[in-house]
Amino acid sequence: MVEPATATQAAAPAVPQLKDELDIVIPTIRNLDFLEMWRPFFQPYHLIIVQDGDPSKTIKVPDGFDYQLYNRNDINRILGPKASCISFKDSACRCFGYLVSKKKYIFTIDDDCFVAKDPSGKAINALEQHIKNLLSPSTPFFFNTLYDPYREGADFVRGYPFSLREGVPTAVSHGLWLNIPDYDAPTQLVKPLERNARYVDAILTIPKGTLFPMCGMNLAFDRELIGPAMYFGLMGDGQPIGRYDDMWAGWCTKVICDHLGLGVKTGLPYIYHSKASNPFVNLRKEYKGIFWQEEIIPFFQQAVLPKDCTTVQKCYIELAKQVKDKLSKVDPYFDKLAEAMVTWIDAWDELNPTGAALPNGKAN
Amino acid sequence: MVEPATATQAAAPAVPQLKDELDIVIPTIRNLDFLEMWRPFFQPYHLIIVQDGDPSKTIKVPDGFDYQLYNRNDINRILGPKASCISFKDSACRCFGYLVSKKKYIFTIDDDCFVAKDPSGKAINALEQHIKNLLSPSTPFFFNTLYDPYREGADFVRGYPFSLREGVPTAVSHGLWLNIPDYDAPTQLVKPLERNARYVDAILTIPKGTLFPMCGMNLAFDRELIGPAMYFGLMGDGQPIGRYDDMWAGWCTKVICDHLGLGVKTGLPYIYHSKASNPFVNLRKEYKGIFWQEEIIPFFQQAVLPKDCTTVQKCYIELAKQVKDKLSKVDPYFDKLAEAMVTWIDAWDELNPTGAALPNGKAN
Repeated sequence: MVEPATATQAAAPAVPQLKDELDIVIPTIRNLDFLEMWRPFFQPYHLIIVQDGDPSKTIKVPDGFDYQLYNRNDINRILGPKASCISFKDSACRCFGYLVSKKKYIFTIDDDCFVAKDPSGKAINALEQHIKNLLSPSTPFFFNTLYDPYREGADFVRGYPFSLREGVPTAVSHGLWLNIPDYDAPTQLVKPLERNARYVDAILTIPKGTLFPMCGMNLAFDRELIGPAMYFGLMGDGQPIGRYDDMWAGWCTKVICDHLGLGVKTGLPYIYHSKASNPFVNLRKEYKGIFWQEEIIPFFQQAVLPKDCTTVQKCYIELAKQVKDKLSKVDPYFDKLAEAMVTWIDAWDELNPTGAALPNGKAN
Repeated sequence: MVEPATATQAAAPAVPQLKDELDIVIPTIRNLDFLEMWRPFFQPYHLIIVQDGDPSKTIKVPDGFDYQLYNRNDINRILGPKASCISFKDSACRCFGYLVSKKKYIFTIDDDCFVAKDPSGKAINALEQHIKNLLSPSTPFFFNTLYDPYREGADFVRGYPFSLREGVPTAVSHGLWLNIPDYDAPTQLVKPLERNARYVDAILTIPKGTLFPMCGMNLAFDRELIGPAMYFGLMGDGQPIGRYDDMWAGWCTKVICDHLGLGVKTGLPYIYHSKASNPFVNLRKEYKGIFWQEEIIPFFQQAVLPKDCTTVQKCYIELAKQVKDKLSKVDPYFDKLAEAMVTWIDAWDELNPTGAALPNGKAN
């Protein structure tokens, strides 16, 4: 039986790392009581809350947190006509938070995610582990069988080329979930009682050329390195599909990281995921994605970016072009999506003017 | 502090799986007292002991084990002039055991490897876990973030293409080591006291297109699917290099598995590795490999096998050709090695006549 942690205070670090360089982005439609549990870990940081749905509703945030809240009216006001690229009635709206952040790092978490415990019973400071992942290199070019070689007590094993031991900068840290696993609707329906109780004490780099299903529930990234690729697409209200926002961002991000020589890590930290979404509702949102992904994934596996794509923005615009060329035949939706991808980059460059022209998104 | 298990009897299964379909191959130069600890797990199986070094020395095997022992005289007698492809004074000689086995599966283990304990203190039956790994499919085409989806309590996560959920046959199961990690000589010298105490409860497929450093210490494979690729090269006596036998086999095997659509898993099971080899001696054996691998690995990363290579043997002969063409410029040693690779396949086909002509090594 998996249970969330209760005593989190003791596990908080004395000095919060990257306090002024990281924003926590939370998409929500409800009061953020879940923050109480995260207080010792999150309170030092600035929160960007993206309120989805009815903007007249008031979202309560527990006292003592430093936050900005954006609702749909704010999104429309700030982006004007470009607001069309931000999804409505879908947690894909979270990427608006990445756009307006002025920090180097982003951690994003869902409001049904609580503090998990490691096997010793200690509360897991997920944010602290993400920061460790992002601040240590990745190893996408060759697999290390003892997992992350930069962790304490680990190293590169015999046979690992010395020329590759410096690694590459880490752009993405993908965390996992105890309790309710991130299953699709068919698997949820077939295995309603399955819970993830296996704590795997590993972090590893997803090798170059390999795609993975990126989940947005517990995710951190270096906004300067990869931010413009973290677009969560057109989902929810008025769209034929949902629950593929993070997948879309993951496919685009991985292809661009591979092209630019950046790393993507997965594994620790775990959060405790408390609430399985309704599998019947999910099936309705997902069913087109379930057959579309059979064509989208080969598309991304074969996507090649030209050498002159030296910034994330250029890569992303090029990907948008290829989406239009090659996926529109799957469904007219991909035409719209390709256009929204371009709008997103326009919005990014407008709100992040200095970052636009520099290689690898290394702004400042 | 990591310690080996002591009570192994209780952890032995009532019915040993694949009892008549698996051989355990052990290369050694000493009495096999280490088998006492493995008795509950290994005794039901047939052992193939490959005695390295002086053939006049007597190797003592504990009572009650069913085994065949081959020394250098036996190797010369059985293979005649083809015996030149089997290394002497190096554990690379173990691959002779793969050649003479008549079983579908091989498990190979070093004689300084003992029974490890899982975090609950239970003795780990490494062989049983390897069998589980080999009998369940692999997923080389897309990464599953909850690791092996076929394990109890796990599955494919949201966003994993349904068309890939049947997986592919698993050809190789690569196990890990608690206590003494498998480091190269420079790392051993720099970190003499490092011990691996991290038990990572995971098995994962190494993605297609990604190479890894395969260690021969704790390794199992499907001999019918991939056996002819498991050649451990020319090492030790009379050769300019040692400690790259398993690496060589791993590079060749992975390239061929990728070409034939077979899977390679790494992770569980752990063994307890008791004795670090002498780092000064290792450095002498390894130093050429340490710079050669900087050219060998890109060679294997770029190696492409033509479509008409439909059997492991054909793939291996083709690889031998490419080694001669492209690595001979690194050192004349690779000319010799390429020839030995061809000799190995000749020997394999001679000793395994029915398997030679069938696709994918699926003999019988």
